[in-house]
Amino acid sequence: MRGKEFSFSLFGESHGKVVGVLIEGCPPGLEVDKQEMRVDLERRKGKKRFSTERRERDEPEILSGIFNGRTTGAPITVVVKNKDVDSTFYEKIKDKPRPGHSDYTAGEKYYGYNDHRGGGVFSGRLTVGTVIAGYFAKKILSRRGVEIRAFIKSIGGIECGGCDLEDIFHEDFELCPDDDAWERMHGLMKEVQDDGDSIGGIVEVVAKDVVSGLGGPFDEDLAADISKNFFCIPAVKGVEFGSGFEVSEMRGSEANDEFYFEDGEVKTSSNHCGGILGGISNGMPIVARVAFKPTPSIFKEQGTVDLEKGEDTGLRLKGRFDSCIVPKTLSIVEARMAVVLADHLLRWYSWKEFMNLERE
Amino acid sequence: MRGKEFSFSLFGESHGKVVGVLIEGCPPGLEVDKQEMRVDLERRKGKKRFSTERRERDEPEILSGIFNGRTTGAPITVVVKNKDVDSTFYEKIKDKPRPGHSDYTAGEKYYGYNDHRGGGVFSGRLTVGTVIAGYFAKKILSRRGVEIRAFIKSIGGIECGGCDLEDIFHEDFELCPDDDAWERMHGLMKEVQDDGDSIGGIVEVVAKDVVSGLGGPFDEDLAADISKNFFCIPAVKGVEFGSGFEVSEMRGSEANDEFYFEDGEVKTSSNHCGGILGGISNGMPIVARVAFKPTPSIFKEQGTVDLEKGEDTGLRLKGRFDSCIVPKTLSIVEARMAVVLADHLLRWYSWKEFMNLERE
Amino acid sequence: MRGKEFSFSLFGESHGKVVGVLIEGCPPGLEVDKQEMRVDLERRKGKKRFSTERRERDEPEILSGIFNGRTTGAPITVVVKNKDVDSTFYEKIKDKPRPGHSDYTAGEKYYGYNDHRGGGVFSGRLTVGTVIAGYFAKKILSRRGVEIRAFIKSIGGIECGGCDLEDIFHEDFELCPDDDAWERMHGLMKEVQDDGDSIGGIVEVVAKDVVSGLGGPFDEDLAADISKNFFCIPAVKGVEFGSGFEVSEMRGSEANDEFYFEDGEVKTSSNHCGGILGGISNGMPIVARVAFKPTPSIFKEQGTVDLEKGEDTGLRLKGRFDSCIVPKTLSIVEARMAVVLADHLLRWYSWKEFMNLERE
Amino acid sequence: MRGKEFSFSLFGESHGKVVGVLIEGCPPGLEVDKQEMRVDLERRKGKKRFSTERRERDEPEILSGIFNGRTTGAPITVVVKNKDVDSTFYEKIKDKPRPGHSDYTAGEKYYGYNDHRGGGVFSGRLTVGTVIAGYFAKKILSRRGVEIRAFIKSIGGIECGGCDLEDIFHEDFELCPDDDAWERMHGLMKEVQDDGDSIGGIVEVVAKDVVSGLGGPFDEDLAADISKNFFCIPAVKGVEFGSGFEVSEMRGSEANDEFYFEDGEVKTSSNHCGGILGGISNGMPIVARVAFKPTPSIFKEQGTVDLEKGEDTGLRLKGRFDSCIVPKTLSIVEARMAVVLADHLLRWYSWKEFMNLERE
Repeated sequence: MRGKEFSFSLFGESHGKVVGVLIEGCPPGLEVDKQEMRVDLERRKGKKRFSTERRERDEPEILSGIFNGRTTGAPITVVVKNKDVDSTFYEKIKDKPRPGHSDYTAGEKYYGYNDHRGGGVFSGRLTVGTVIAGYFAKKILSRRGVEIRAFIKSIGGIECGGCDLEDIFHEDFELCPDDDAWERMHGLMKEVQDDGDSIGGIVEVVAKDVVSGLGGPFDEDLAADISKNFFCIPAVKGVEFGSGFEVSEMRGSEANDEFYFEDGEVKTSSNHCGGILGGISNGMPIVARVAFKPTPSIFKEQGTVDLEKGEDTGLRLKGRFDSCIVPKTLSIVEARMAVVLADHLLRWYSWKEFMNLERE
Repeated sequence: MRGKEFSFSLFGESHGKVVGVLIEGCPPGLEVDKQEMRVDLERRKGKKRFSTERRERDEPEILSGIFNGRTTGAPITVVVKNKDVDSTFYEKIKDKPRPGHSDYTAGEKYYGYNDHRGGGVFSGRLTVGTVIAGYFAKKILSRRGVEIRAFIKSIGGIECGGCDLEDIFHEDFELCPDDDAWERMHGLMKEVQDDGDSIGGIVEVVAKDVVSGLGGPFDEDLAADISKNFFCIPAVKGVEFGSGFEVSEMRGSEANDEFYFEDGEVKTSSNHCGGILGGISNGMPIVARVAFKPTPSIFKEQGTVDLEKGEDTGLRLKGRFDSCIVPKTLSIVEARMAVVLADHLLRWYSWKEFMNLERE
Repeated sequence: MRGKEFSFSLFGESHGKVVGVLIEGCPPGLEVDKQEMRVDLERRKGKKRFSTERRERDEPEILSGIFNGRTTGAPITVVVKNKDVDSTFYEKIKDKPRPGHSDYTAGEKYYGYNDHRGGGVFSGRLTVGTVIAGYFAKKILSRRGVEIRAFIKSIGGIECGGCDLEDIFHEDFELCPDDDAWERMHGLMKEVQDDGDSIGGIVEVVAKDVVSGLGGPFDEDLAADISKNFFCIPAVKGVEFGSGFEVSEMRGSEANDEFYFEDGEVKTSSNHCGGILGGISNGMPIVARVAFKPTPSIFKEQGTVDLEKGEDTGLRLKGRFDSCIVPKTLSIVEARMAVVLADHLLRWYSWKEFMNLERE
Repeated sequence: MRGKEFSFSLFGESHGKVVGVLIEGCPPGLEVDKQEMRVDLERRKGKKRFSTERRERDEPEILSGIFNGRTTGAPITVVVKNKDVDSTFYEKIKDKPRPGHSDYTAGEKYYGYNDHRGGGVFSGRLTVGTVIAGYFAKKILSRRGVEIRAFIKSIGGIECGGCDLEDIFHEDFELCPDDDAWERMHGLMKEVQDDGDSIGGIVEVVAKDVVSGLGGPFDEDLAADISKNFFCIPAVKGVEFGSGFEVSEMRGSEANDEFYFEDGEVKTSSNHCGGILGGISNGMPIVARVAFKPTPSIFKEQGTVDLEKGEDTGLRLKGRFDSCIVPKTLSIVEARMAVVLADHLLRWYSWKEFMNLERE
């Protein structure tokens, strides 16, 4: 993600030495607490029961950019070592691309030179770096009072019920604010897992207390930047803001969010636009939903091709896989929202003080 | 849109002198036919009956980058002059932001210095430049055999029925391949218009004969770039690829697209992924859907604020507005898909011949 | 020039309809005075006697981004129409690249599709857009008190004598603060012109009252950005800062600029570094020199190739050319310095207020 | 350095855990030979006698992007661990910026949060990553037959005598092709060292067999990109191409390089332009010179300020320093030339095959 002020680059492979991230443009002086960083990294591993149990603790190792416990302003590099990786099975299926995975397209892109083991650079494991970048972005945002929270909106069509947007920041839940719905989602995940299959879902994410005026027209569009970042998360197939696809069925008189004053601040009485109007934040909560496909790693026999032999064949995967990756994605989705908002917030400051100069 | 090889920048205002576009990175030698350019510009104005009847012909004037009827490789600038613009009404509502419009957020972004007349730089009129950029991008793509077509998928919940993806490139339709559905959409648009209201809809777009291997991981993700571009179109609130949000309800055994060989080429038996796996094109048609909100310009009384007086107030718009902008967006959606694919295609070539060097 | 906050793109051709510029990232609210803009454009045309006398007045036409006499914050487009252009001669020499000109390399780059007339997009005339971008950049800088001034340091080896850097901002000179030297330069230019030849020179440029802390390591290096911009000016073959190439002959004990306090501010007792240390401004004047080659347009017979016939041939140019372009470059060099400093100043603000947040 | 196709980002600090580099856009399939990489890294450490004798072997550790001994196309990360670092002295001078060093400006840029030990991120040690990036860039170039070689042009005004540009690629020299001059340079370096002082110098670099057509107008200017990269090397104060600053004293009839045919290829009879015309390579050798200031680390007493106390003070450095860093810079200068040419070469391919499509 290359923002104008805040950027990060991911590196590493699933079965390589490390996964990591290089962060550029993070302001100096931010206190770094590894324990906080670990919390988001642990969230990225989801509930133990339904996640791939690769028994490694993701311990972040800081290689650069931190001095005396604070960011220096220089590039920050953090790596997490990979462990316990057996690549034997991947050698066996080297020429048989797994359906729904990037095996085939990675080979096309990289002329067959890609590290195919465990998906290589396309592995979900690379999101470790995203979460770490998100940690720093959230630190930037929190200084301005911006908070971000993601939760499971649905799994396999089972929807999280009425959740007040303000409440989700106060309620003490881990994955989904609706306990009943989560019970049923949980049951479905187990059922699907017993069946050797997988299931998709939707994550909703909210950013509150965002200043108005972030973003702009064309390439500066805030929704466009956020959306690009969400689609950089593996397995995402859809992104919407506010009322999203539903708004296509609405009338203007319903979809338009009316303005009113509250304590001298401009608010809107509804938030169908999801906090972004004309590509610019309006000060209301930014609300987005991200659709994840079921993880393509399933235990059922699937049809594929043998690229070596040039013929159709079948494939049955082995190993330990999540039946549903959605619970693992919350800190990733939050991170992607955070990095865009941090970049736009820093850009916003570049004009803000300059405009004050004039008014002196 | 700043691609690595192909870029464009929009400029102009709704009630200013011109709207236009500067295109950088377009290869030399492409024949330019203004009549073809006009066709997409006319499509951008939609059916006369349901569109804002600003009686101007959008005549493209080429300022740079074309010589002897062909692109030179240097920056291309094209402008379209604005005409017939009465800004009186906009002066009256200067301090009363129209709900659902960018008036309020533009003022926040630009500290009140923005040209507010007709939405200024945020006006849908700026998509003239997008369509012109798309014209050049399509020329690049067509040399490689890539074709793009958009159609109305739904308006106000009325859905276009079974349309075979291959057929939409051959069928001779203007807006929607399903005549019956279009009849009903048309009826709804009229009904809504008579009611002084507006209605949203969904556009589907397909790119076929795209080479496999476009895109990549992280910032190179093809879906991410396309999505970013779609969200740069005014009024877009959702984007999805392939089975999109529906995939969140699917099982992996259903959502995974199985590979097989057809005439020596790798194909997939379904296309739930919408032609993009791991951020990279797989050679199948790229299929995306874009959700448009109802145009916020309606004739009903709406609540807003008076920013000058600092109090709540009401607003009733005057003028001629579309009840539904969806029919006007087809060439814009196609253009946004085209510019991303053209950029990624040119980038793909940068490795392709280099890789051949090795194999000599 | 694509800065992170302030950017501009040039377009147009020497014998095309217009030359122009698209400026992105200029803050809103800056008053625009066309008369001021014209002054820099007139400076770009230099002394009448020694410049190509294409009798056009460069009248800037603003196409976008200005409203009520001020910048809006949206993209600014300005064009200047071309006039009086006779391309006949250029048709005759189409296949005979002029030595020292870009004719040959432009053909290589653009596969022969380039507009070759008058150098096309490579013409010095394109610097009109640079000067206009510089006008806006200077407006940004002046709000913070930064001033930039360029002068002729030497022509054909005749050097401008002792000029106190502070004085050049107060002295009322047009091209060179040393009247005697200028007299001799002027004589040399006339002599060279009578001989049908041309002569090179060096421009020195100074920016004063620049805040310390602009720039950074690696890609953020301020000298690197300025240098890149200077080399984007046609005919530049060398760039140096402070004592520049001479520093290669110095000892560290001489070249190191010692620090001291003056009225509570850190200053250096010498300025061999030219105001930039470690890629970052130190608050002292930024001093750079730019070497221009003699304009390649001369009236003497020269050897070249006939690309059509594939054989060596000769060439004698016709027309009106400057014997020395250096006097015309002052506002261009200033503009290139200004755009980099404006970009870095805006970036500097993006951290400045953020850092204040912490200290509250 | 962010090219359009090939990029790299440096990270690490002089006294931190590692220095390293992240390389993006390197094509897949390039064989990686660590021994070759070590050669350039050893060259970066120069002659033992005159270089800072920090007794660490720079052993590159590859963290990502290499698989089965070849590049994969994914991001490449290489780090070199730091060793033997005693930061005691730097703590003592924390508030006394060393003249000529980045200590003061780094503090200004980073609000005092920078890692000041050994210059932190501004240390010459960071060029380890540049040399590694150059290793990969050279591999790309060599597949197309492009070779790059740098040599010492002068130290303290002692100039390398007549060196035929073609010869420097065949001659077996380490630092300077003129043995006599090198003897005298060597003597001067020793003399300066005994005096506790340092001395500057100039490096010349040549790239041969570069294809014509790399680069372009404006932001694509090849000289501008190379120059920007050279100025990113610590201690560089001047850059020139071809006859460089001398060209300012030439007449056009002398400076213009005449074209002629040789074996069907267009050549120039002289190379005052240094292989770049109008920002585009002309197929002749690209020749540039880079001026290095004397390293600011000297043993003489120098005046500086005490930022803590707010008063003027003196400073005498301790440790082991090079009296001249120029011999250590050759592989760095080559690397900076290589990364720009590699990026532009890959970009050149993006049009090349596309243009062939048309002519089929």
